[in-house]
Amino acid sequence: MGKTILITGGARSGKSVIAETKALSLGPRPVYVATAEIRDAEMAARVAAHRARRGSEWSDHPEPLDLAAALRATDGQGPRLVDCLTLWLSNLMLSGRDWQAVARDLCAALPGQRDPVVIVTNEVGAGIVPDNRLARDFRDAAGEINQRVAAVADEVILAVAGLPLKVK
Amino acid sequence: MGKTILITGGARSGKSVIAETKALSLGPRPVYVATAEIRDAEMAARVAAHRARRGSEWSDHPEPLDLAAALRATDGQGPRLVDCLTLWLSNLMLSGRDWQAVARDLCAALPGQRDPVVIVTNEVGAGIVPDNRLARDFRDAAGEINQRVAAVADEVILAVAGLPLKVK
Amino acid sequence: MGKTILITGGARSGKSVIAETKALSLGPRPVYVATAEIRDAEMAARVAAHRARRGSEWSDHPEPLDLAAALRATDGQGPRLVDCLTLWLSNLMLSGRDWQAVARDLCAALPGQRDPVVIVTNEVGAGIVPDNRLARDFRDAAGEINQRVAAVADEVILAVAGLPLKVK
Repeated sequence: MGKTILITGGARSGKSVIAETKALSLGPRPVYVATAEIRDAEMAARVAAHRARRGSEWSDHPEPLDLAAALRATDGQGPRLVDCLTLWLSNLMLSGRDWQAVARDLCAALPGQRDPVVIVTNEVGAGIVPDNRLARDFRDAAGEINQRVAAVADEVILAVAGLPLKVK
Repeated sequence: MGKTILITGGARSGKSVIAETKALSLGPRPVYVATAEIRDAEMAARVAAHRARRGSEWSDHPEPLDLAAALRATDGQGPRLVDCLTLWLSNLMLSGRDWQAVARDLCAALPGQRDPVVIVTNEVGAGIVPDNRLARDFRDAAGEINQRVAAVADEVILAVAGLPLKVK
Repeated sequence: MGKTILITGGARSGKSVIAETKALSLGPRPVYVATAEIRDAEMAARVAAHRARRGSEWSDHPEPLDLAAALRATDGQGPRLVDCLTLWLSNLMLSGRDWQAVARDLCAALPGQRDPVVIVTNEVGAGIVPDNRLARDFRDAAGEINQRVAAVADEVILAVAGLPLKVK
């Protein structure tokens, strides 16, 4: 069966490069499962920079909401890189979906994958408590999703200044 | 003598579950020393969820301010779990107490305990510098308290996505 | 050649004390390269507290902008402690300098130093995404600089509650 590897870390901690290197080491023709919905120029620039850094070896499978379906659709094509869970959570919350049910579907789908899955997420809970309720709810939900995925993952890595720190 | 174990981490990083598991492994009939003062519905919901997760094996000893006294009062009853230092600091600051003196009392009381003490705290300093002075003062004070307690602790664990990372 | 050691961590995580201890262990008469520009009373108090904690063994070499020049000017005098990169980045951005070019100069200068260099920086990306664009740009830039310096460093340490966690 394919391993599940979770890469977490703060903003610009080098998570994506660590995850891309990991995915490329796990097999040829990796699939990039982007959860980003491009809603403004700042986001478009980030996505374009990510794509330019990855080479032509990668194929793209964008999926903002149903990651379990994306994993089923791409299993057998090669290692998958899901980037990232916090944008996915943001999409789920903005669209009014039951994020807990969708997260359970993802965690249920992961152990049965034949090809490996590398998942990028963010640490968002190590600052001061946010003033507004929405931000507090988001960071609580992100923390819960990170815990659930980490619990079913075979490896968990914390990215610090571009370097991997083994957690599991 | 009883060991002191400090569990730190961001919001929803799984600190409390790690701490509860640790306390239960250290002896029967653990005592839950809650520092939370219930001031609104959001807090009441968090406290109720925590209590529901812990079983009937636990006894409660709420103490929002004088943790050294709470440790003296409960020593001999079983392992103590103090949850958490940042709410305690917040209570001390809101009540106008000299938090540095109270923190010194706590650090002086810890090494003499017969039963072990597991202490939960939060990482609050890894975000962007807060705009307002009160939030900056709070995160500076929380960081100082974490350092002081870590210095007298026998073990220090960083919780990442629900998993323990050994620091000391 | 002199080693480069990067110490990162959140606010009040004990980075500076770890860095000072490290610098003192690497040779006599260390040089303190302060990047702080004193612009208000809060900053003046922090700088004074830092200086009081360090003993008379240290010499001061303040440099808010051109760290590569500061390293060239002080090489041969003893171990250097640069404290810190995030204040330096803030100075560069406020003065309208090309921080990426200046960071490249620093990273190019580090491997050729004869005396060791200990560098303090901050983790600023593990909180909730900041509301304002300037704060987001700052945390992205800080993360990039941390990655670049970590890539050329011989050792990287994450400070957690005053304790060193080895990353590289």
